[in-house]
Amino acid sequence: MKVVKFGGSSLATGAQLEKVFDIVAQDPKRRAVVVSAPGKRHTADTKVTDLLIACAERYLSNGEAPELVEEIVGRYADIALEVGLGNEVIGLIRSDLLRLLQSDKQSPERFIDAIKASGEDNNAKLVAAYFRHRGVEAHYVNPKDAGLFVTSEPGNAQVLPESYDNLFQLRQEPGIIVFPGFFGFNEEGEVITFSRSGSDITGSILANGLKAELYENFTDVDAVYTVNPSIVPHPKEIRELTYREMRELSYAGFSVFHDEALIPAFRTNIPVQIKNTNNPSAEGTRVVTKRDNTNGPVVGIASDSGFCSIYISKYLMNREIGFGRRVLQILEDDGLTYEHIPSGIDDMTIILRQNQMDDTIENRVIKRLKDELDADEVTVEHNIALVMVVGEAMRHNVGTTARAAKALSDARVNIEMINQGSSEVSMMFGVKEAQEKQAVRALYQEFFAKVIV
Amino acid sequence: MKVVKFGGSSLATGAQLEKVFDIVAQDPKRRAVVVSAPGKRHTADTKVTDLLIACAERYLSNGEAPELVEEIVGRYADIALEVGLGNEVIGLIRSDLLRLLQSDKQSPERFIDAIKASGEDNNAKLVAAYFRHRGVEAHYVNPKDAGLFVTSEPGNAQVLPESYDNLFQLRQEPGIIVFPGFFGFNEEGEVITFSRSGSDITGSILANGLKAELYENFTDVDAVYTVNPSIVPHPKEIRELTYREMRELSYAGFSVFHDEALIPAFRTNIPVQIKNTNNPSAEGTRVVTKRDNTNGPVVGIASDSGFCSIYISKYLMNREIGFGRRVLQILEDDGLTYEHIPSGIDDMTIILRQNQMDDTIENRVIKRLKDELDADEVTVEHNIALVMVVGEAMRHNVGTTARAAKALSDARVNIEMINQGSSEVSMMFGVKEAQEKQAVRALYQEFFAKVIV
Repeated sequence: MKVVKFGGSSLATGAQLEKVFDIVAQDPKRRAVVVSAPGKRHTADTKVTDLLIACAERYLSNGEAPELVEEIVGRYADIALEVGLGNEVIGLIRSDLLRLLQSDKQSPERFIDAIKASGEDNNAKLVAAYFRHRGVEAHYVNPKDAGLFVTSEPGNAQVLPESYDNLFQLRQEPGIIVFPGFFGFNEEGEVITFSRSGSDITGSILANGLKAELYENFTDVDAVYTVNPSIVPHPKEIRELTYREMRELSYAGFSVFHDEALIPAFRTNIPVQIKNTNNPSAEGTRVVTKRDNTNGPVVGIASDSGFCSIYISKYLMNREIGFGRRVLQILEDDGLTYEHIPSGIDDMTIILRQNQMDDTIENRVIKRLKDELDADEVTVEHNIALVMVVGEAMRHNVGTTARAAKALSDARVNIEMINQGSSEVSMMFGVKEAQEKQAVRALYQEFFAKVIV
Repeated sequence: MKVVKFGGSSLATGAQLEKVFDIVAQDPKRRAVVVSAPGKRHTADTKVTDLLIACAERYLSNGEAPELVEEIVGRYADIALEVGLGNEVIGLIRSDLLRLLQSDKQSPERFIDAIKASGEDNNAKLVAAYFRHRGVEAHYVNPKDAGLFVTSEPGNAQVLPESYDNLFQLRQEPGIIVFPGFFGFNEEGEVITFSRSGSDITGSILANGLKAELYENFTDVDAVYTVNPSIVPHPKEIRELTYREMRELSYAGFSVFHDEALIPAFRTNIPVQIKNTNNPSAEGTRVVTKRDNTNGPVVGIASDSGFCSIYISKYLMNREIGFGRRVLQILEDDGLTYEHIPSGIDDMTIILRQNQMDDTIENRVIKRLKDELDADEVTVEHNIALVMVVGEAMRHNVGTTARAAKALSDARVNIEMINQGSSEVSMMFGVKEAQEKQAVRALYQEFFAKVIV
């Protein structure tokens, strides 16, 4: 049995829906389909999820938004019309949405979550109807009936462990099940969404619960690339990579696959296959527990910007028990999370995402670090990028660091920071944002351009 | 005015004392002399300080130790005899020691501190007497009279700020002042010692207080070497280095100069000149605030062993506010200090000195990390060495990291960890202890063997 997940762009139009049907129909093992809400049909388009959020907000401020409701229902109706589906399912979708918009608004967060989630929920009904229209046994499954229970954190739900056993029961269902992505139910029976792009998470949870042999994630790219194509044109594709490698790449800017979504599949060793709905014959990229190393130590290079560093120096700092802990406490008091803490003998640097701090927070943190820790110097540097070189084989390869550092040096990139030694599968370089692309290109050149595939 | 400090081996015999006199007499600016207790006369010898500790411990256990008292007094007497000094000062030394040994033993720590400190105190009296014997105006100064006040931490005294102004008054004294190293007085008038080798600290405090133009530190090596001579035979000498460079080298195994001792001199920009009592015409090594870069980016390479690493992994660790702080709190609860915390996305590693942990502490810490933080994995690796490459010019030199990493890679040294980016003057590599010497030699070869001086 395979779980197949389709993203919003794969379900934006009737033509796309037909591709989806063909893909599922082609392999009888594809028995569980997880769907997102209809996405953008073209660059300037609006995703159904965003229309739903706008609509929910209008209702919350005591307004109504009949034109938004019609636009949303119209998106489903357009798809239905395009594929020759009758109006029955569209009637269901409209009444479901109107019913939800009239529901309790005591908790605005919960209300928005319920409206947002209807995008996926109603799309699953539409997709199931179309599959049946094409003569295939298929039916929509409601996550509540299926027992997908989650914690009560709107926009950040975490699956509860009993869900897996509940979902296993779905194996008994005949035909193809069509399951809405992006949300589950808390113990009070309320809709709670996962973090954004959470349909990937639903697919992974379902693959785990159903004990699937494969989790196929259909999106709109042929594969995961070794580097961001907007930095290096036409980069090599990654055929196979491990969960750990994927997780490290996702962290630093690879947005193909939601990083939380790997966990349920990873826990049960279910491979994840990333494929292109618009080019299903392309090989795609496979995420696995263990892989053979073929093309050198590095599998991918990622980068992300928008970091800053707080530098703290104090003579004989390393003799003060509790110094580091007190620094982190001061950050925590302002709700700040840090990424890395490179340290010298008498100094330490904290790397964190700068969007967490406005001027007020920054000044308060600096003042507290100076006053409470009696630091000799505290300075903040903005606009730092982190460049990550990822590959399982790196730890067996003594020369990788040297090659990376030399490539950066030859490209005249100044290394502000190196963090290597905790993760066995990655090495991280801090550079100034102005040199980020230069750094990524130099590393790509070193580790990929020379490789014969 | 220059402050001149002589270590124990420079004052172990009459012949050494004559060299000391010649050195001081040679430059009329050398007006403040700081002395250690007499050190070893040969490899198998015992330092006077160690005899004093043994003696104090015997008295504490309600015994007496006349033979130890005579051995200690004998050391001073031998020196006096050798240089033709009368017996008067030896009589003073004996009665002073006997008086101290009869003093209050309510606090054993304070008692030991007072006895230990007498080694320097009485040697200062002897040295002053000898200088006068040679026809030079010189006198012993008692740190209490001079106002050298410190905190009440036996064996770890910290100078109190008012001391500097007090010591400035010594400029009024005629002739040469001879000042005992290693201790000061707390506000109750009790002797409190600095940490071991603390005479360097006294010299630095005195240089600061007296607003000296130079602090000369005479020891038994010609210079600070670029690398440990027991790892690389006949290494290059360092002519000039900055305080920061010296501090980083001292940390990782360079024991020429006590690292705490740099602070008072550093705060007032007084250069520190390290010279050899037994070869005073050798240039020595100068520690300064700022230096010109001459021979490449690296000034020295140091290493130290006996570290271990605690590896902690937990999926999505970096989203948990307070995770790192709680890790450090658990270490702090057992009084553990850490050196570095390299981190990945879902893991962090804590590098610490392993002599802080016995099996009981190690197991307790691991258990708490697993239980309280719900970590997926906690493992400890022992026997790690840290190799430090030090040089002010490194931060302006993009290629230094690449050269260092390549040198290690060519020597087949596996880099377990890199810590670079907080300190601007050093770069640290973690390697297995078994590869420590190999690593140091490879780096020396890369940064020094190729340089033409």
